[in-house]
Amino acid sequence: MRISVEPRHTYKLINHGPTTLITSAAGGKRNVMAAAWVMALDINPPKVAAVIAEDTYTRELVDASGELVVALPTRAMVDVTYAVGSVSGREIDKFEKYALKTSPATKVAPPLVEGCAAWLECRVIREPHHEKAYDLFVAEVVAAWADDASWKNNSWQFANDDARTIHHLARGDFLVSGPHVKAKAL
Amino acid sequence: MRISVEPRHTYKLINHGPTTLITSAAGGKRNVMAAAWVMALDINPPKVAAVIAEDTYTRELVDASGELVVALPTRAMVDVTYAVGSVSGREIDKFEKYALKTSPATKVAPPLVEGCAAWLECRVIREPHHEKAYDLFVAEVVAAWADDASWKNNSWQFANDDARTIHHLARGDFLVSGPHVKAKAL
Repeated sequence: MRISVEPRHTYKLINHGPTTLITSAAGGKRNVMAAAWVMALDINPPKVAAVIAEDTYTRELVDASGELVVALPTRAMVDVTYAVGSVSGREIDKFEKYALKTSPATKVAPPLVEGCAAWLECRVIREPHHEKAYDLFVAEVVAAWADDASWKNNSWQFANDDARTIHHLARGDFLVSGPHVKAKAL
Repeated sequence: MRISVEPRHTYKLINHGPTTLITSAAGGKRNVMAAAWVMALDINPPKVAAVIAEDTYTRELVDASGELVVALPTRAMVDVTYAVGSVSGREIDKFEKYALKTSPATKVAPPLVEGCAAWLECRVIREPHHEKAYDLFVAEVVAAWADDASWKNNSWQFANDDARTIHHLARGDFLVSGPHVKAKAL
C-alpha cells in the first residue's frame, strides 16, 4: 500500500543513491525516462537535484510544466527501467509500449508508475543558468510516497529481493541494493 | 593496486550512487567528511555535483582552495565513514584520530584516503549562486583512480564483500551494494 512520507523523512528515500524513473507531463503529453543522476539536495523542505539532458523529450515537458515525479523502480522492474532509458518518448508512448500502469499524483500532473518503491512529486525551482550550463534541475518535493511493504519506521526494509532498489552501473548492468550494515561507534 | 580511470569512464565509478568521503586541504590544514549527496554531472570531461553544507570545515577548506577529492569507502570502512561524518574537523584531526592512512593526489592538494575503492580528484567550477543557495558545488574531475582488485574493464566487479561500496540510509545504517542484475532487452 502507498503511504505518505513526511517531508523531514523524504531524503531518506533516495539517500542511498538508487536509479530513478522520472515522469513528466505537459499539454496532454506525458513521458517516462530512467535517471541515475538524481540526489537529495535538502532535508526540510525536501529538495532534489536531477540531471535532465537537453535533447530529451522529458526536458521539453519539464520545461513546459515545471513538474516531475521521481520514482524508485524495483529489481522486478529492471528490464523496463533500462528500456525506458534507451528510447525517446518523442517516437513512442513508452507507457503503452511497456504496459506501465500509472495512477494520478496528488499535487502535480506527471503520473505515478505503479510497482515502484517510492515516488517524489516535485515542482521545479527555476534556475536557468544551471539548467542550461549543466542540464541540472533543482526541485522541491511537494509530496512523497512509499510502498509500506518495504518502508518501515521511515527506513528501507525491503520486503523481498524483487522489491529492492536498483543502481545502474552502465549499459543495462545494475547493482541491486544489498544487505544492511550498521556502523559501530568509534 | 591503484589504476588510472580514463575521463570517459569516470562517471561509471559513481553512477550507482555510493556514499563518499570528501577530502579537502588549504593553508596547511586538511579534512575528511562523509557525503551521500554526490552525483555525476557530466561524462566527458567528467564533472560531479556535491552538497557541502555551509557550516562545515570542509566547506571552509574547499572555499579556500577550490579543490576536493571524492573517494568511495568500502564496506570494510563503514565505521570510519560514519565516524568522520559525525564530528567536525575543526575540533580534531580526523585522519589522526581514526588512523586514516593517506597518499598524495596527483593534481590537487587534498589527499587520497587509503583503502577506498576509487578516488576522483576534482577542481571546483565556481558557481556562487548555487553554492550559497543550495550548498551545491560543481567540480571537474581532473584525475580518477580505482582499485584494480574491484575495477575490471571499466566496471565494478567487487573483489569480495568487504570491498563493496556502501550507501547510507540514515544514522549509521547503510546498505551494501549487492549482486549484479543485467537488464534484458524488451
